[in-house]
Amino acid sequence: MLLHLSTWSEVEVYLKQSQGIILPIGSTEQHGPTGLIGTDAICAEAIARGVGDAVNAMVAPTINVGMALHHTGFPGTISLRPSTMILVIKDYISCLVKAGFTKFLFINGHGGNIATLKAAFAETYAHLADLNIPNADLVQCQIGNWFMCSSVYKLAKELYGHEEGSHATPSEVALTQYIYPEAIKQAALSAEVGSGHKIYGAADFRKRYPDGRMGSNPALATPEHGKQFYDLAVKELSNGYLEFLNTD
Amino acid sequence: MLLHLSTWSEVEVYLKQSQGIILPIGSTEQHGPTGLIGTDAICAEAIARGVGDAVNAMVAPTINVGMALHHTGFPGTISLRPSTMILVIKDYISCLVKAGFTKFLFINGHGGNIATLKAAFAETYAHLADLNIPNADLVQCQIGNWFMCSSVYKLAKELYGHEEGSHATPSEVALTQYIYPEAIKQAALSAEVGSGHKIYGAADFRKRYPDGRMGSNPALATPEHGKQFYDLAVKELSNGYLEFLNTD
Amino acid sequence: MLLHLSTWSEVEVYLKQSQGIILPIGSTEQHGPTGLIGTDAICAEAIARGVGDAVNAMVAPTINVGMALHHTGFPGTISLRPSTMILVIKDYISCLVKAGFTKFLFINGHGGNIATLKAAFAETYAHLADLNIPNADLVQCQIGNWFMCSSVYKLAKELYGHEEGSHATPSEVALTQYIYPEAIKQAALSAEVGSGHKIYGAADFRKRYPDGRMGSNPALATPEHGKQFYDLAVKELSNGYLEFLNTD
Amino acid sequence: MLLHLSTWSEVEVYLKQSQGIILPIGSTEQHGPTGLIGTDAICAEAIARGVGDAVNAMVAPTINVGMALHHTGFPGTISLRPSTMILVIKDYISCLVKAGFTKFLFINGHGGNIATLKAAFAETYAHLADLNIPNADLVQCQIGNWFMCSSVYKLAKELYGHEEGSHATPSEVALTQYIYPEAIKQAALSAEVGSGHKIYGAADFRKRYPDGRMGSNPALATPEHGKQFYDLAVKELSNGYLEFLNTD
Amino acid sequence: MLLHLSTWSEVEVYLKQSQGIILPIGSTEQHGPTGLIGTDAICAEAIARGVGDAVNAMVAPTINVGMALHHTGFPGTISLRPSTMILVIKDYISCLVKAGFTKFLFINGHGGNIATLKAAFAETYAHLADLNIPNADLVQCQIGNWFMCSSVYKLAKELYGHEEGSHATPSEVALTQYIYPEAIKQAALSAEVGSGHKIYGAADFRKRYPDGRMGSNPALATPEHGKQFYDLAVKELSNGYLEFLNTD
Amino acid sequence: MLLHLSTWSEVEVYLKQSQGIILPIGSTEQHGPTGLIGTDAICAEAIARGVGDAVNAMVAPTINVGMALHHTGFPGTISLRPSTMILVIKDYISCLVKAGFTKFLFINGHGGNIATLKAAFAETYAHLADLNIPNADLVQCQIGNWFMCSSVYKLAKELYGHEEGSHATPSEVALTQYIYPEAIKQAALSAEVGSGHKIYGAADFRKRYPDGRMGSNPALATPEHGKQFYDLAVKELSNGYLEFLNTD
Repeated sequence: MLLHLSTWSEVEVYLKQSQGIILPIGSTEQHGPTGLIGTDAICAEAIARGVGDAVNAMVAPTINVGMALHHTGFPGTISLRPSTMILVIKDYISCLVKAGFTKFLFINGHGGNIATLKAAFAETYAHLADLNIPNADLVQCQIGNWFMCSSVYKLAKELYGHEEGSHATPSEVALTQYIYPEAIKQAALSAEVGSGHKIYGAADFRKRYPDGRMGSNPALATPEHGKQFYDLAVKELSNGYLEFLNTD
Repeated sequence: MLLHLSTWSEVEVYLKQSQGIILPIGSTEQHGPTGLIGTDAICAEAIARGVGDAVNAMVAPTINVGMALHHTGFPGTISLRPSTMILVIKDYISCLVKAGFTKFLFINGHGGNIATLKAAFAETYAHLADLNIPNADLVQCQIGNWFMCSSVYKLAKELYGHEEGSHATPSEVALTQYIYPEAIKQAALSAEVGSGHKIYGAADFRKRYPDGRMGSNPALATPEHGKQFYDLAVKELSNGYLEFLNTD
Repeated sequence: MLLHLSTWSEVEVYLKQSQGIILPIGSTEQHGPTGLIGTDAICAEAIARGVGDAVNAMVAPTINVGMALHHTGFPGTISLRPSTMILVIKDYISCLVKAGFTKFLFINGHGGNIATLKAAFAETYAHLADLNIPNADLVQCQIGNWFMCSSVYKLAKELYGHEEGSHATPSEVALTQYIYPEAIKQAALSAEVGSGHKIYGAADFRKRYPDGRMGSNPALATPEHGKQFYDLAVKELSNGYLEFLNTD
Repeated sequence: MLLHLSTWSEVEVYLKQSQGIILPIGSTEQHGPTGLIGTDAICAEAIARGVGDAVNAMVAPTINVGMALHHTGFPGTISLRPSTMILVIKDYISCLVKAGFTKFLFINGHGGNIATLKAAFAETYAHLADLNIPNADLVQCQIGNWFMCSSVYKLAKELYGHEEGSHATPSEVALTQYIYPEAIKQAALSAEVGSGHKIYGAADFRKRYPDGRMGSNPALATPEHGKQFYDLAVKELSNGYLEFLNTD
Repeated sequence: MLLHLSTWSEVEVYLKQSQGIILPIGSTEQHGPTGLIGTDAICAEAIARGVGDAVNAMVAPTINVGMALHHTGFPGTISLRPSTMILVIKDYISCLVKAGFTKFLFINGHGGNIATLKAAFAETYAHLADLNIPNADLVQCQIGNWFMCSSVYKLAKELYGHEEGSHATPSEVALTQYIYPEAIKQAALSAEVGSGHKIYGAADFRKRYPDGRMGSNPALATPEHGKQFYDLAVKELSNGYLEFLNTD
Repeated sequence: MLLHLSTWSEVEVYLKQSQGIILPIGSTEQHGPTGLIGTDAICAEAIARGVGDAVNAMVAPTINVGMALHHTGFPGTISLRPSTMILVIKDYISCLVKAGFTKFLFINGHGGNIATLKAAFAETYAHLADLNIPNADLVQCQIGNWFMCSSVYKLAKELYGHEEGSHATPSEVALTQYIYPEAIKQAALSAEVGSGHKIYGAADFRKRYPDGRMGSNPALATPEHGKQFYDLAVKELSNGYLEFLNTD
């Protein structure tokens, strides 16, 4: 059930049977010479909708821009500062809690969002407690990182080994190829690729990872792989969502 | 050209020929018993992409959630507070300016966003001036409200007269029907509809507009109307964008 | 009744018969070679006091500095950033609501304040709702722009035609001449005047409007005109205030 | 020279001979049963203008609302939160520094403003240093509290002894009587008056100081006293301003 | 009783008999060629613990970094901006109030903290009032500046006369020598020392006070003096704390 | 080398040979019936000083209060909100970067700090880049969690198996016993202990973990164990610091 394709009356009915909602969150950031700038949002959205279908859950509109400050040395990247993103998440959750939602699963496509999301959850719980909202103490937020699903991780290792890398990975590129076959990109990839450096500021990042890839070989990606990743992630996160709902 | 389906290298090439970008911005808010919660984002996104195609401009990912605090009395509405939205817009523009963009057209689907967008632009110009960025003084932001295009407005009056109303209007509902024919909703609409009240807080709004409509009769909408609105808005905003680009 | 010339006991008595208050808000910004930097605050204050006298309403101290970032390229301009102004307005209203006021009419002398004021109202309604204040849901804020009164607008067109322009206008200059005849300024005005450009950042503004005027010829102003504008604005806004008070 | 009655060109000329400016800052807060809510702003403004005349200095529009949270238990009080006021002061000074001002004398009418003003100055110096503005390192802000002038203090002790108290004092009431003889208030004052309690929150303040006075007997005030205080304060602060200007 | 060496159960027991808590607050800032960067925190902590022992009060962990922006021109200084420090103090007090504490004595080692602390207290009282916490109206915060104790001040004058100065004073250096005899520093001190200049920004401060001292001669300090200051401050602030506790 | 026991001249000398600094960061939060509220700060401080001695690095004053909102249901806990902590970290680092430091190792004693620290680093890198500071692009921040050192983790598993748990663990309690043998606490510990629940808000946390422990049996701790943990952590983090310094 997609929130943006529902009416408020349908939401009202939904809330009588479930207080859970899935929020896809991605990023708008460079993904190397062949990866789409929207990769993280595209993956999160597709998987979130797959999960929503599988478990009959409400899916909120995708948060397309996340915390990608370290990628801002490459054109096309858009990032919220962490302090902004905390406010955004707080505003989202507060609105939905007042309407009756209490279980929030953020299906996330970008590792760089995780820290700020966790900080935002803590900030939000405390904010809601201050407001004396009846169901504030029931509010629970979780992050479901599709790329960290054990089944996804296992397949990526099988298919790509160390060439999976950690950014602009063949697995995420494959998934976008499956979702947008019309947007498969071709570009020469140097054999040499930055790898193993820690992440600091944007200028430093671009110096160490000059084409944007982090140890990955996205040329290995295929749309068929993408479908496999999709199916695995949807299945694993669907189970996760149901377990989340069924735990008090 | 869709930013989320581009690579950073493609953006780099694009920036050599144009510094313009289109940002669709909508809202996630109740639209009466039959209007989709995502109406404003759906309309803005579709028209922005149409304009992007027509004028060969880069289109950023859609800002799905805007300033809709007055609608938060209805379940499913998500809103940023104005102070949050100002930070979001500032973060978006700042990233893109550092990459080289200078002309920002926000194609907007929600009247409630206009004031905060204008405030955000002012805040952002001053912020950029403080940063000593070379092209800060060239940065220009405009809002293109599709529903205020004169051709759109004229057609809506012709088709619906005073039943167009001002929220959950048949024109915007028609446009969503054209874009998502699979999500056309049916629900009984009372003949009586709230109308003419000013907008204050969320509780007050719900009291005055109990089903969410503001003076509108969305039952008049058809997908065919929606196509007409789409074509008119794309044409008028395409011209607007080109004029914007060609003015120093 | 002027708040700053009242005692708290007098306010307490006033609140038993009315919960309305008028807040003059202006700006401190350049107004061309002959316009006073305080023009917008001067006009708003004088008219607000006129309205207060006419309808026996409480008038708050004038907010002398508003949102004029685009004028900051000219010396003497002082501006709040929009994010600051939102906090200021929120603080003002919150204090007054806790004391019992619920109807707020901001009599405004500066077009550049409107967007931020609207954003601030939305932010404030939501803030008050979070506080569980008894009368939070009754709070209503409106803006009364004296220069947009239909009677004022009509007279300006009659007297000045297109030479009214849109900043440092003869109508507002006339009004300040009526209020401060001792501060009527003389300066050569070039026949050529910037006109029709959109407003972006401060440096851009100064480039397009080199002497600060926007399409106006303030040399046409006279104190007698000023009195006419004053009378019209007071009358029209007095009616507006009473209607506001009498609407639930 | 009053900024609000000047043109931007006059400010430009002024800046060639002086970089100093006087900013009156008051408060809008209860001042006991007979004191005006605007007392602190009225006094600061009148004295600032007197000083401006005496030393030929630019005087900015009055900041009418300051930090008076502890008085908000009495109707009619309006206060900024300290965090808001810091932003306001930062915005004011930043605008004026960019125009060329470097010496800021805040003529202050309210003890409760002092701490927040000092905090704001520190915040602003650091902010300006970050901006790489040429004259940032020359910026100097001082507070001139008229009620703490030694000559004023001495006269108050002579005239009123311990009945001067510390809020709603006869000296400040006298000054407002001199400035606004038409607004001299009469009300019964209890012989008993709260005194000697520390200041905490608003509810606590109202409990300890039930009529708003702090140890004072404003019935002793006369307009003639007011003139004496005015003359003393203008003289002493004029000397202070000149000394400030002449110290590098 | 040291909070950091207590368990939560011990705090629970403590709260049944007392709602008071002592919070040492210092600064991390240059103290001249021979003064320790931690001087203000070291002194505040030692004295606070002495007071805690004397009056059986809970002592919170030391706030080591305060408002020292004007010292940031010297390496090793760390400062919060005032706006940050307000939030820090608000967060500290809010947590402790929710647990049941209502009387807060900040034992302070740095003059530069005072203004921001006062601003923070006002901000916090208002914040707590908004939260509808039962004991919000009982919350009281005070500052105890050890260096302003009358007995301390008297001794410093006796021992050092005008060579006490106002920063990197022999009294505070003596106290750190008593507490950390292993960290007594030797360095040549110029006979000439900056004195009598007002405090503005960091660059200005370093220019006027080139070695960091403000009119002081810390070479006069001895550990024995330090013990005397310690004893006097503990005694005077212990009495102050008890009086604070015993006043409603 | 302890920053708080150094003079600014010593820091100046230090900076000529190293731009690295160690910042201990802990928390002030409940640690079960027998764990000290200061456990995380105590451990971080002791280990940081050990590392500083071992590698001759500057050690900053301890950040005693971190992000512990989920523990605020227990008296004695003090927490910053994540948004506050981001500002604090930004202020700390900004001051130190301006003085010349570029390598920041936060030795951390609290898992709950990690997400907010990471968010703060990202925020700070972007902030510094905006300031045009020469060495902004060289700034690097890392977190060294002593409890996640592989040698520490291994020993904890050997000594305590699953009774190590994840909060109020015997390993951290042992370390505090080694550091503060005079503050070893005795209290009955129920055999049953909350375990395996995810962390949400403070009220929820206290319900699931009624005595504050998370799956741990701190009764197993001994001061001798504490010494072992200390030695292992100091060794491992010293190596980590040197590697950090030696990597460009």
